[in-house]
Amino acid sequence: MRKIAIGQAGGPTAVINTSLAGFLDTVQADVYGVLDGFQGLVEGNIVKITEDIKRKVDQHRDVPGACLGAGRYQMSDDQKVKALRQLQERDIHTLVFIGGDGTMSALCQLSQTAHYIGYELQVVGIPKTVDNDLAETDHSPGFASAARYVALAVRDISKDLEAMRNFEQVRIIETMGRNVGWLAAASGLLKNHETDGPHAIYFPEQVLTAENFLKNTNDLVQKFGFVSIVVSEGVTIQERPSVEKAIVNGRKVLGGVSTQLAQLVHDELGLMARDELLGMNQRASQLASSSQDRREAYDVGKKAALLVEEGISKVMVAINRTSQTDYQYRLSAVSLEKVVGGAERHLPNHYIKDLDQYYQWLRPLVGFDL
Amino acid sequence: MRKIAIGQAGGPTAVINTSLAGFLDTVQADVYGVLDGFQGLVEGNIVKITEDIKRKVDQHRDVPGACLGAGRYQMSDDQKVKALRQLQERDIHTLVFIGGDGTMSALCQLSQTAHYIGYELQVVGIPKTVDNDLAETDHSPGFASAARYVALAVRDISKDLEAMRNFEQVRIIETMGRNVGWLAAASGLLKNHETDGPHAIYFPEQVLTAENFLKNTNDLVQKFGFVSIVVSEGVTIQERPSVEKAIVNGRKVLGGVSTQLAQLVHDELGLMARDELLGMNQRASQLASSSQDRREAYDVGKKAALLVEEGISKVMVAINRTSQTDYQYRLSAVSLEKVVGGAERHLPNHYIKDLDQYYQWLRPLVGFDL
Repeated sequence: MRKIAIGQAGGPTAVINTSLAGFLDTVQADVYGVLDGFQGLVEGNIVKITEDIKRKVDQHRDVPGACLGAGRYQMSDDQKVKALRQLQERDIHTLVFIGGDGTMSALCQLSQTAHYIGYELQVVGIPKTVDNDLAETDHSPGFASAARYVALAVRDISKDLEAMRNFEQVRIIETMGRNVGWLAAASGLLKNHETDGPHAIYFPEQVLTAENFLKNTNDLVQKFGFVSIVVSEGVTIQERPSVEKAIVNGRKVLGGVSTQLAQLVHDELGLMARDELLGMNQRASQLASSSQDRREAYDVGKKAALLVEEGISKVMVAINRTSQTDYQYRLSAVSLEKVVGGAERHLPNHYIKDLDQYYQWLRPLVGFDL
Repeated sequence: MRKIAIGQAGGPTAVINTSLAGFLDTVQADVYGVLDGFQGLVEGNIVKITEDIKRKVDQHRDVPGACLGAGRYQMSDDQKVKALRQLQERDIHTLVFIGGDGTMSALCQLSQTAHYIGYELQVVGIPKTVDNDLAETDHSPGFASAARYVALAVRDISKDLEAMRNFEQVRIIETMGRNVGWLAAASGLLKNHETDGPHAIYFPEQVLTAENFLKNTNDLVQKFGFVSIVVSEGVTIQERPSVEKAIVNGRKVLGGVSTQLAQLVHDELGLMARDELLGMNQRASQLASSSQDRREAYDVGKKAALLVEEGISKVMVAINRTSQTDYQYRLSAVSLEKVVGGAERHLPNHYIKDLDQYYQWLRPLVGFDL
């Protein structure tokens, strides 16, 4: 029987295990699980998926975190060869990974290295990202649940601030999203009135100067008596040093621009400002996860199993929206090289200028019936 | 018709509006709303509760934030007299406030000042706190929803960390709770196995030394490969300066001990450690709110209306648990002076030593059926 290995990599999402379940429920093969992402692949941390493990995955299909272990790991050229040797030793000729852009890039490179050393290897990617920065797909599983969390959290924190406006006037809420503004923009999805938060959203796609920020904040405080501001972690303030929390395995850990902005408000406007990172719950909250997102996460896992059987390689499963009016989609296979080679998928300018248009696009994914 | 004023004060909770709705649905009187807490009372920001406002409150009964506006405000003696004059001008002889210990203390003082200047004033308090530090009641509305949020968030963040253990090993999650550990302790409510987070909880009721913290953290990392740690905002590290974010209106804004602890892990153990404040969603998350908490919040509002009609003064509504096995409670009136004069309500030592016992007490309030 054909032998297949599957792994999970990168930051988990609320639905990354749902995709794993969709794959395992569908695939007809001898399946192996790669533990702890690409590090596990290099180190041969590969186990047979038994009925017990399948049961565990099924119990965890709506549970955050990654059942197999994920993590971030940058492979050197030597390590790529080592990873392939691990597969070779086990006679595994198909590798499937659930992940984001780093994962798709790693799959692509492993495929190239395999070709170079003459090892037959099929690679298939299952998309997963809360940032929504993967190219060649309408959106990726994980994003909608994170967007739902952000929309709910910012609405509630803004309501709380409104009630506290004689004690504190400014809250600056920082979202995930890396270098793209999709998630930050989702924060306004539940806004019904001008007075509801967020009153301002700052995107990595736009230039932010301290001067404009302070003027806008001051105007909003004058107008509403309080102001709830959302900023994406990827925003940098022009002519100010950008914030880097740490660099781990070559990847910048972002976070901290909200603290910089709160300090500015305190120093320059003399107002109490609280900064708040929305934190890990954006990608991990089970309660906030979107049922549509769960459905799609399962379906892309299933689709990957079918692609494996068809023998197609160097592809990622993509979601194609076929109708906006009564949200419909179909799944397809897109070239991994195109996904990896594409430019970073920024929030388009027409959405930034007209958020309502963006929310029409977003609402069916997130599942609010408003 | 008798004239009554009601206000909300302190940090809002997910159910503070539910208590307001319970009161307004029940009370038979000409009701006035005090806007923005005690500041509004002093400044005469008092409006008649019209049918429109009642409808708005009803629509907001499950919505976070405080419909009337709350905020923190410390009245001087002169301001107390001013507050009473505002009531006198409107011929209002009953004042009801929904709030925590600061609110109960303010009501007590207003009652004393009224007595001193010969103004007839009935005062009734409706309990509300996420910290659960109010004395003379089994627990207070708002706490169970916050506890539910903390339990869910810490479970999910810990699952996420477990999946990321080859990238980062330590997360330090900071909860609200001021000087008492009830909320921090709730973080372990959904823990099923030894490997599930949180692996350690630090309470304000106990002494924490850097040495013990580091040893314990190191042991846990050795044992599990990762460690999810919860710390209450009120914890101080012995012989280290305590963290004070700010002092506003005489009240310390806590928060920051998780950052201190993460720095210690980084400096002394050489591990990547992320600190995370659970933030305002602890008291504002609508999604995480407990249905039992909502029921009780409504009932204490209703009970306050009945106490007003009975003419009883200087009391707070209290929840008395009458049965633990099949959770039952009844409401009563307790002396405001006793509430205010009581010692801070710490998490008892027998709960700290045996958290399962605490979780038996907590579970019916939070509503997990596990």
